Amino acid sequence: MERNMNELLAAMTLEEKASVCSGRDFWHTQGIERLGIPSVMVTDGPHGLRKQRASADHLGVFDSVPATCFPSAAGLASSWDRELVKKVGVALGEECQAEEVAVLLGPGANIKRSPLCGRNFEYFSEDPYLSSELAASHIQGVQSQGVGASLKHFAANNQEHRRMTVDAIVDERTLREIYLASFEGAVKQAQPWTVMCSYNKVNGVYASENAYLHTQILKEEWGHEGFVVSDWGAVNDRVPGLAAGMELEMPGSGGSGTRAIVAAVQSGELSEEVLDRAVLRILTVIFKAVDGKREGATYDPEAHHRLAREVARESMVLLKNDDNLLPLAKSGRIAVIGEMAKRPRFQGGGSSHIRPTKLDDIVDELIQSAGIGTTVVYAQGYVLDRDEEEERLVAEAVQAAIAADTAILFAGLPERFESEGFDRTHLRLPDNQVRLIQAVAKAQPRLVVVLSNGSAVEMPWLDQAGAVLEAYLGGQALGGAIADLLFGDVNPSGKLAETFPAQLKHNPSALNFPGEGDRVEYREGLFVGYRYYDAKNIVPLFPFGHGLSYTTFEYTSLTLDQNQMNDTETVNVQLSVKNTGSRQGKEIVQLYVRDVKSSVIRPEKELKGFAKVELAPGEERTVTNVLDKRAFAYYDVESKDWRVESGEFEIAVGKSSRQIELKESLVVRSNALQRKAYTKNSTLGELLSDPQALPIVQTLIAQSPFGAVTEQSGEHALAGMMAAMMQSMPLRALAAFSGGAFTEEAMNGLLARLNDESVASRT
Amino acid sequence: MERNMNELLAAMTLEEKASVCSGRDFWHTQGIERLGIPSVMVTDGPHGLRKQRASADHLGVFDSVPATCFPSAAGLASSWDRELVKKVGVALGEECQAEEVAVLLGPGANIKRSPLCGRNFEYFSEDPYLSSELAASHIQGVQSQGVGASLKHFAANNQEHRRMTVDAIVDERTLREIYLASFEGAVKQAQPWTVMCSYNKVNGVYASENAYLHTQILKEEWGHEGFVVSDWGAVNDRVPGLAAGMELEMPGSGGSGTRAIVAAVQSGELSEEVLDRAVLRILTVIFKAVDGKREGATYDPEAHHRLAREVARESMVLLKNDDNLLPLAKSGRIAVIGEMAKRPRFQGGGSSHIRPTKLDDIVDELIQSAGIGTTVVYAQGYVLDRDEEEERLVAEAVQAAIAADTAILFAGLPERFESEGFDRTHLRLPDNQVRLIQAVAKAQPRLVVVLSNGSAVEMPWLDQAGAVLEAYLGGQALGGAIADLLFGDVNPSGKLAETFPAQLKHNPSALNFPGEGDRVEYREGLFVGYRYYDAKNIVPLFPFGHGLSYTTFEYTSLTLDQNQMNDTETVNVQLSVKNTGSRQGKEIVQLYVRDVKSSVIRPEKELKGFAKVELAPGEERTVTNVLDKRAFAYYDVESKDWRVESGEFEIAVGKSSRQIELKESLVVRSNALQRKAYTKNSTLGELLSDPQALPIVQTLIAQSPFGAVTEQSGEHALAGMMAAMMQSMPLRALAAFSGGAFTEEAMNGLLARLNDESVASRT
Repeated sequence: MERNMNELLAAMTLEEKASVCSGRDFWHTQGIERLGIPSVMVTDGPHGLRKQRASADHLGVFDSVPATCFPSAAGLASSWDRELVKKVGVALGEECQAEEVAVLLGPGANIKRSPLCGRNFEYFSEDPYLSSELAASHIQGVQSQGVGASLKHFAANNQEHRRMTVDAIVDERTLREIYLASFEGAVKQAQPWTVMCSYNKVNGVYASENAYLHTQILKEEWGHEGFVVSDWGAVNDRVPGLAAGMELEMPGSGGSGTRAIVAAVQSGELSEEVLDRAVLRILTVIFKAVDGKREGATYDPEAHHRLAREVARESMVLLKNDDNLLPLAKSGRIAVIGEMAKRPRFQGGGSSHIRPTKLDDIVDELIQSAGIGTTVVYAQGYVLDRDEEEERLVAEAVQAAIAADTAILFAGLPERFESEGFDRTHLRLPDNQVRLIQAVAKAQPRLVVVLSNGSAVEMPWLDQAGAVLEAYLGGQALGGAIADLLFGDVNPSGKLAETFPAQLKHNPSALNFPGEGDRVEYREGLFVGYRYYDAKNIVPLFPFGHGLSYTTFEYTSLTLDQNQMNDTETVNVQLSVKNTGSRQGKEIVQLYVRDVKSSVIRPEKELKGFAKVELAPGEERTVTNVLDKRAFAYYDVESKDWRVESGEFEIAVGKSSRQIELKESLVVRSNALQRKAYTKNSTLGELLSDPQALPIVQTLIAQSPFGAVTEQSGEHALAGMMAAMMQSMPLRALAAFSGGAFTEEAMNGLLARLNDESVASRT
Repeated sequence: MERNMNELLAAMTLEEKASVCSGRDFWHTQGIERLGIPSVMVTDGPHGLRKQRASADHLGVFDSVPATCFPSAAGLASSWDRELVKKVGVALGEECQAEEVAVLLGPGANIKRSPLCGRNFEYFSEDPYLSSELAASHIQGVQSQGVGASLKHFAANNQEHRRMTVDAIVDERTLREIYLASFEGAVKQAQPWTVMCSYNKVNGVYASENAYLHTQILKEEWGHEGFVVSDWGAVNDRVPGLAAGMELEMPGSGGSGTRAIVAAVQSGELSEEVLDRAVLRILTVIFKAVDGKREGATYDPEAHHRLAREVARESMVLLKNDDNLLPLAKSGRIAVIGEMAKRPRFQGGGSSHIRPTKLDDIVDELIQSAGIGTTVVYAQGYVLDRDEEEERLVAEAVQAAIAADTAILFAGLPERFESEGFDRTHLRLPDNQVRLIQAVAKAQPRLVVVLSNGSAVEMPWLDQAGAVLEAYLGGQALGGAIADLLFGDVNPSGKLAETFPAQLKHNPSALNFPGEGDRVEYREGLFVGYRYYDAKNIVPLFPFGHGLSYTTFEYTSLTLDQNQMNDTETVNVQLSVKNTGSRQGKEIVQLYVRDVKSSVIRPEKELKGFAKVELAPGEERTVTNVLDKRAFAYYDVESKDWRVESGEFEIAVGKSSRQIELKESLVVRSNALQRKAYTKNSTLGELLSDPQALPIVQTLIAQSPFGAVTEQSGEHALAGMMAAMMQSMPLRALAAFSGGAFTEEAMNGLLARLNDESVASRT
């Protein structure tokens, strides 16, 4: 419907305008009846709808309407499948339509800085490219249904510990290349109707008051058209927040936010124009929701459950499979061990905790998949709600394992270990689970461990397990998906979107997590996730991008459509992938870029492309990725822009970040000019590399005391030392060492001359 | 002699005062004849005198008078022997007297941030306590002879790469606890006559102009009484340098420094008082030298050579000795392999490079120690000046090794690999040496590798060598010392003062060394050396403090004279050390302190005491260390002071940083008060831990939406999450979630009340 928003705005009183910048209550925007501005509903969460019933507590934790619970983002990301993630978004959008929800609060694009972060299960990856690609797909799916998404939590909200007051100190290059990049791609590709600001401070300023984030970067640089909403309770000071570009305060503050805005406009502290712009952004989204609303919409819970199962299968990662223990034969005797098989952990704790429309019984699903020729017995093994071992349960489980041909042990993190609101302090499974795994492994070498957890865990027992399936938090259809994979009805294809470290201390943030008091410094900088394990050569338990299949794939014929390019062009990267095994399967091909030589610190490689391809046995297909300037660029803090340093780049394609199959070389030329005037602190090395300066400086050196030494040293080892010292010696030092022969005046004259000439020659 | 310095100063013209703030030439201060102010000489170097002959080039690289070359600091530090280091200082002081040198330019107390630093051989350690203790001893020795020392290079000069222009970005706590601490102890204990400023910038300001370093910290906080001299050519801008407390410019600038100072005083830019204070400091040191001068002093080069041999024996570290391969029997046939046996690397390159009074021939020394019953043959093995393997030399060496009972292979870093002026880019030995070691090891399992290098190297061949002796740069008597140790005439007792990493990438600075352009960030912060390997649980090749002996030692009876103390008191730590082997030997006992629980980030342990004790077989002695506040304190950036956080500390004594033998616990109480006012961003956790606030805040929570959830959640997993969320929720969020029930006014009233009461209750 066509509306004249400016007329509408003009009709609003100051109080009305201010009032729409806060929620009506916990879950609704403020409407204005006399002007036909409706109040619309927003609800949690990224992997399923958490719409509280009218009668429930404010937070709606215990009483929300049933909704399909899809795998949470940590699992979803392991699919590396843009189309699949979009499908999930579409389904979520359909459920929002059916429940009359205008905006769904998700997805979360925060980077997994530490595996300890309690909310990692809601985030995609440690890699900004993968994360932003999947967040974009998610948003596109939701918004295709006339429902808004809310990309969260903007920004640098990478821990739960003191999340409402902690100040994340992140250098700008790291912020741009890692933490913001994860949002940037999603905003630019998918235009989320809303972006949610985080609770924390970023470099000293609350995210809810951060003009640099919301106005300069999000709106001006990235062109975001929607509005920014506060995370619930994130507002510290309402008026500076609005001025900074944080338009909507949630939940409503009982009128105090509105009063503060009105007073600020009246006193002149806040320009009414700023308020007007905020109101326009909010109203635009509200009316988008009104226009997108499909009256009487419904969805098919069974179809969505089937989708949840499909998604779960793609989200699970086969970490280990010695001697092809998996897939299991549909015969014989199987011991299913572990209380998590009966009380599965299928979703994360906190605001995204939903009430599923139905929930698979894992044991039933296994029985059903295994068929009548198979005997399945269950043993509890441990008490999920406690850490202490119960000898009786262990003995029973061991007996069951011995009596069986294969044991499937369900383990993972109980919700009390991992949730929104707090971080883990270690990466261990509960002690009783570890002891059970070790006891069962001794009794039954054919041991399959199925893990349910939202983020990486340590596995001191890994050598003892024949196979490990990482099921993450698999959503309501996890049982069917696990059965599909274990018995080989579906071939596992997920790959890790995060590194599993061998031990917590190896993690890049280990020395600075969760910080001191209300301050956390991101001292590892760019070296997050595999970027760090690469640069430090620390062997992870499982690397980023790792995941096994029941078939095998071969990569050949890596080709680039050009081997020299300007950074204004793009390059097509192609390779052939062939299924060389005997089963249908999907392969995730990863493309990494490395700057071979750089004047700035860069990671050894960075993910810049990926594709998932399904292949029948013997089938071969060409996979194409297109790389543009951004794939080669770093963020240059001085010029405040992305910059490619001319030179050689390596294009590497691999099955994981540690299993590179093919490499090619490419020269990229930057057209950007860098001019720099010489000063008395310019080094002789810099001057000697300038043809104009070379002869003059050579003469100066020859006349200096170093000249004599260099001459005498000849082939002596000293020659190398002198040369190295000269390289990094500033011009002023040559003057200092001249004993007055090369005066300051002479130096200044020389500099003036060189700057004139070299500017002319280098532009 | 008594002099009235103020009268002297009053008699000086402005030009004269300015002129004494620069050198007369390269190696002399400016004298003023008419006032009887002499010109005195200063010379390089910490491990031997480098006094250039009058006729030589300015730098005196090729033609200096003969002097005793002692082991350089990297080796010296491995002795962990304060008295021995002092003896070296005394000997250096004697040689200065004989050569009429007033100030010796050393020792260097920079911290070994990276093993790549080309000048590490001149520095003591990666640990500030060990470094400052040994620097103090060195200075005390030199200055006991009426000669001044110059503690260098102040500060944060931890790389040679772009050392004259690079800006070291170091957070203040790290600067204080690591980089400055290494100087602090030496200044406070030994009052060096002069301190030499470094070339680089520190946090944006050239060290030569750094008032924070020279005036605030060195003079005001530490009470340094001498003067600061520029490193040669370190002056960037003379006048701000003088104002910052950098008194003497070296070398002389041909009058330009003097003219600049005069002009600045005349224009009022520089106060004459500042100049006067500088001149007083310089004159005081000059007249100290005059008064300390011993006319006609001489020294006994033979006695100093014997001392150099004693010192070298204590400085070498037995890294590995499988199956007691060492000591060698004085019989049979020994193959001595490697050109470094004939052309030993016994000192570092650069300004400390001296002309020794004599130089041991290693092969001769081995023959002499081995006695007539032993046949010693030599094979060159490799060409020291090249990296390429020569097959003929390898074959010859292998033949010699096969024909012998034992092979001793001399390897290490050629001078072209390691020197002042440039940094290494890798930690490898030359390729031809590595291949030779591997070839000889295959032929002769009884292989002893003797290494000469100034800093850590990687040893991919370590498994193949039976024994490894790290000889460092052992000075002119290295040959005799090596013979003494290999044949067991003396028992090795050195221990590493630095970590040897398994590979370069493991080093803490690996991601940020040598920085980008003219900027290097010390992002590893406090985690330098073993502090990092501990915290990251990365296993080094050889840990800090490691060193083997031909005998064994047992540690027992660790006792503290009190288990509870105030931080104003001291604690005596005692233990018994017994020689449980069959040879006389010396043991270096290391004492580490750990803060068991801290609100700030702290290393897992820090060296706070050490002792070296000599024991006959079966002998047992008590070792005592005294710890004061500083052993438990961290530098508190907010209060700008050292602070102990009350609580438990662990006292650990060990044979190395990774071989802790005994532990004890101690509670230290701080008397310092920390008061903090509550704000709307105080967390509920902070408020709930305050008895005054507890009931009020509990009521508020109960009335909030969280109250209902918490109540309903009961024993549910959610309870833990809610509790954790509450802990770190700021008071303002409780207001935001109250839906207007808990108003901003009520919150402000509550805060005012709490701040009144809590201040009263907590002081």
